[in-house]
Amino acid sequence: MHRYRTHTCGQLRDTDDGASARVSGWCHRIRDHGGVLFIDLRDHYGITQCVADPDSPAFKLVETFRSEWVVRLDGKVRRRPAGTENPDMPTGLVELYITDAEVLGQAAELPLPVFGDQDYPEETRLKYRFLDLRRERLHRNIMLRGEVVDGLRRRMKGQGFNEFQTPILTASSPEGARDFLVPSRIHPGKFYALPQAPQQYKQLLMMAGFDRYFQIAPCFRDEDPRADRLPGEFYQLDLEMSFVTQEDVFEAVEPVITGIFEEFGKGKTVTQKWPRIPYAEAMQKYGSDKPDLRNPIVMQNVSEHFRGSNFKVFARMLEDPKNEVRAIPGPGGGQRTFCDRMNSWAQSEGQPGLGYIFWRETDGKMEGAGPIANNIGPERTEAIRQQLGLKAGDAAFFTAGDPAKFVRFAGDARTRVGKDLNLIDENRYELAWIVDFPMYEWNEDEKKVDFSHNPFSMPQGGLEALEGQDPLTIKAFQYDIACNGFEIASGGIRNHRPQAMVKAFEIAGYSEQTVVDRFGGMYRAFQYGAPPHGGMAAGVDRIIMLLAGEQNLREVALFPLNQRAEDILMGAPSEASTKQLRELHIRLNVQEKDA
Amino acid sequence: MHRYRTHTCGQLRDTDDGASARVSGWCHRIRDHGGVLFIDLRDHYGITQCVADPDSPAFKLVETFRSEWVVRLDGKVRRRPAGTENPDMPTGLVELYITDAEVLGQAAELPLPVFGDQDYPEETRLKYRFLDLRRERLHRNIMLRGEVVDGLRRRMKGQGFNEFQTPILTASSPEGARDFLVPSRIHPGKFYALPQAPQQYKQLLMMAGFDRYFQIAPCFRDEDPRADRLPGEFYQLDLEMSFVTQEDVFEAVEPVITGIFEEFGKGKTVTQKWPRIPYAEAMQKYGSDKPDLRNPIVMQNVSEHFRGSNFKVFARMLEDPKNEVRAIPGPGGGQRTFCDRMNSWAQSEGQPGLGYIFWRETDGKMEGAGPIANNIGPERTEAIRQQLGLKAGDAAFFTAGDPAKFVRFAGDARTRVGKDLNLIDENRYELAWIVDFPMYEWNEDEKKVDFSHNPFSMPQGGLEALEGQDPLTIKAFQYDIACNGFEIASGGIRNHRPQAMVKAFEIAGYSEQTVVDRFGGMYRAFQYGAPPHGGMAAGVDRIIMLLAGEQNLREVALFPLNQRAEDILMGAPSEASTKQLRELHIRLNVQEKDA
Repeated sequence: MHRYRTHTCGQLRDTDDGASARVSGWCHRIRDHGGVLFIDLRDHYGITQCVADPDSPAFKLVETFRSEWVVRLDGKVRRRPAGTENPDMPTGLVELYITDAEVLGQAAELPLPVFGDQDYPEETRLKYRFLDLRRERLHRNIMLRGEVVDGLRRRMKGQGFNEFQTPILTASSPEGARDFLVPSRIHPGKFYALPQAPQQYKQLLMMAGFDRYFQIAPCFRDEDPRADRLPGEFYQLDLEMSFVTQEDVFEAVEPVITGIFEEFGKGKTVTQKWPRIPYAEAMQKYGSDKPDLRNPIVMQNVSEHFRGSNFKVFARMLEDPKNEVRAIPGPGGGQRTFCDRMNSWAQSEGQPGLGYIFWRETDGKMEGAGPIANNIGPERTEAIRQQLGLKAGDAAFFTAGDPAKFVRFAGDARTRVGKDLNLIDENRYELAWIVDFPMYEWNEDEKKVDFSHNPFSMPQGGLEALEGQDPLTIKAFQYDIACNGFEIASGGIRNHRPQAMVKAFEIAGYSEQTVVDRFGGMYRAFQYGAPPHGGMAAGVDRIIMLLAGEQNLREVALFPLNQRAEDILMGAPSEASTKQLRELHIRLNVQEKDA
Repeated sequence: MHRYRTHTCGQLRDTDDGASARVSGWCHRIRDHGGVLFIDLRDHYGITQCVADPDSPAFKLVETFRSEWVVRLDGKVRRRPAGTENPDMPTGLVELYITDAEVLGQAAELPLPVFGDQDYPEETRLKYRFLDLRRERLHRNIMLRGEVVDGLRRRMKGQGFNEFQTPILTASSPEGARDFLVPSRIHPGKFYALPQAPQQYKQLLMMAGFDRYFQIAPCFRDEDPRADRLPGEFYQLDLEMSFVTQEDVFEAVEPVITGIFEEFGKGKTVTQKWPRIPYAEAMQKYGSDKPDLRNPIVMQNVSEHFRGSNFKVFARMLEDPKNEVRAIPGPGGGQRTFCDRMNSWAQSEGQPGLGYIFWRETDGKMEGAGPIANNIGPERTEAIRQQLGLKAGDAAFFTAGDPAKFVRFAGDARTRVGKDLNLIDENRYELAWIVDFPMYEWNEDEKKVDFSHNPFSMPQGGLEALEGQDPLTIKAFQYDIACNGFEIASGGIRNHRPQAMVKAFEIAGYSEQTVVDRFGGMYRAFQYGAPPHGGMAAGVDRIIMLLAGEQNLREVALFPLNQRAEDILMGAPSEASTKQLRELHIRLNVQEKDA
């Protein structure tokens, strides 16, 4: 007989009735029913009910067991007495009558129970992560994580991609965020950097002719903690392809992501043919470049109806041609209380308020109500209703001014209205490509043109566009995937022509020398036969979070750092010895106030 | 038609005769045969011969092409003229007659040709790794690497293991080597460490109840460059299992490794049922704990034949009971010239020499020859021959003294004799378990007992052995896999009992407080229900090196650091800015002499 088990705790069935069995696991729950001891023994595979009564030779020992002790139990499998079966458990028809027992590992008093689903402070959960991970939800999330990663790999290979591991000890590669640095012992005063993303290496792989690369890639960014990202390290499904257009990337990626959401989405509806929404249109309709398309609200420009109207605040604004009035329809929101609540919410967000009209039927007659409707009069009010396709019982909210300034708020208002009116279908994963991102944006602080996204993207129109066009009007072959209000992936067709790359950086104020200094390896590679290529990177942690139905990325990570970027289980970061610092040719520079 | 290709360069066949096709790739080889241009166009998938003559509208452009330019070629597929087919190439029956062409990426003059297999200095190869990776051998090695990793994953999953990613930014975990440190910006004066191995995390996963873990794990050790390891980072197939004995680990791992060598070993014979060789026996028979079992030579203790003999040097040595005379049989090595060459080699290795006897038949009579035989006389010489099972034409070499001191040399001599006599069958992968490693060893410098391998291993006999036995006689449940003279994996059953762990460390001179300080997370976890568990870690890079038939790990790594731990392609390590150092709360401590 095996030293520890003949069966796992998820294995015994009624067909094993009468058999001898040995199981090992954790004492999940211990109950004493009038002198009969019930031990729910748990391992990775399931739970088996084990029983000892005073006739059992192991009774005395079993009596000493406490929660989460690891024990071995030998016994006879028997059917549970009629009426005590648990059909919800795979092992629920049987129990093990204990004849022998052994304690394999005792447990001290638990700072965090494993049985039950009571919530515990995150610090406790992270400090005792090994206990927290035994709990059903987290254990299941982590297993889901592995299955999703496997599913991504399988699908990527099915699309002809090969996996490559790119270096982790590498050169600083400015991706916009801060690098983690690693002091070199052998080269005094020099540092490696951990990759923010394998961007340059994956492009080098294309120069090296590997054609279709992917990687479940660890990425590292030393950024200030934020609720919606994991501190320190996170994982991307990183991919790159040669001899492709944007269309080819879409065709390769769409089935991978759709497939993952279908396989692990617990039956929720998944977008089959993803819409492609230009960035400008997304900002106009949804006030966001990662719109939640489960929300049916589509904003519209209703400036015409306010121009020259008696609602002077808006009418005056519209005298400046860059200004606009945008309507956020609120189907079903046509009650003054609701509209007032939205107005208060807007004020709590630091806005002057949120103007509205709501429509009702009075004596069989459609009527727009509220201060704005009173000001602009029934004809304009009706024209707005018709443009927005609203009916009695609906409302519309308005934001006005410079769209560049109000658009984020308009997007938030759209989300708020959608949520409060229960317009968001929780049973869908709505996926879309957001395309045609601008290549550059205006940096008002520094009064200069900046890259708006990835500096390595190919501008639409190529070198010609860079040379002949107002940079702020140039679009890039740059795209995102939006899912339910999250950006889950971002990519682009790369600028593989050295001349165009130099020009693109020049526009953003970087000399050719700077390009050589900062991206030397890749820039050099471009000189020796670079294929056209493009790709993207998807946020693995975020995708898993969406699939697990969790709100926090740490609920789908195995041993995450806490929000202060500490591992309080292992004690990282920690102090280094003087010897280590000397070997690494560094000294501490800690101010009193820091300490 | 697709913007870049209708077919890859490995796709066209004679069944495509007459079709229009578009291919893109690198100009691998350009030949001008009397005004007709032949372009071997290469991509990841293969090579297609493309032809342009002066009648082609693209001829003028094609004439400008140079090696490694990336081009798009349109044309008609046609059979190659009879007699010019190349049956060794999948596309060798056809060629593309070029009707249109486009330059996608020019290439400057190459520092390293892609066509041909001329050797280049490693610095050039690493600096232009993107070119080196286009070359056939390296490209193939890297693809093999990916396939082996996939094969390991597939087999591990087949054995019921699940893959988990453990943290990379973590706590210093002394595994015997030096840590890479990462200064924390948020916690002044503190450092993360990169994992030397996920040892503690994988044990924590067992405490967390995950049962069977594996990972293709990046590991980081800041060690001085050595020919047989990759500087900086390397990959392990890391695994751990709960509720197992050593036997279970062997049963799970053996088919995975055997399967990989069978799948990718190009038909070489692979050991089916691995021998299990106790450490002491391996040292005795092979002079190594990673013996090359393709070498049939088995060393033997022949002390008895020298005790009290007239070969005074050995006889006197044997008066000390710890000393021994060991014979290295040399079948087929029975010529004085060969024996003398071995003797000279031993001297070049810093030894006083290598005594020998060789046997010949003179007038139908077996005769042992050489100075030793002359000294000890025919009877003892014959007894040695019989013990070693040698015949005329064979030789034996002798090392004498304290086995602890001569054993490494004896092992080297065994290897040398085997190689020089062509006894090693290059067409085999010989795999074996080396078992029963000693738990402790004597540190002569510090006059203390040290752990000989992994401090987390379970001593054979458990706590009882630790309390009652001379520590130096305790064996551990610790094992290696040896393959063709390399250690390709190492593992153990872990010490999961906190009391035994504390005792084991105490013997090596560490207090319980030290254990808590250094392995706090794991030590704490042991208090809350630890299952018996064990596992191992296999060197992925080394396995791939063996499969690729390479001598150097950098030939199977994508972007390896050079022997000075530099990435000369990307320029790592490099200087950090003053701003970065300030943010990380460190200053440089670089001596003039360092700079």
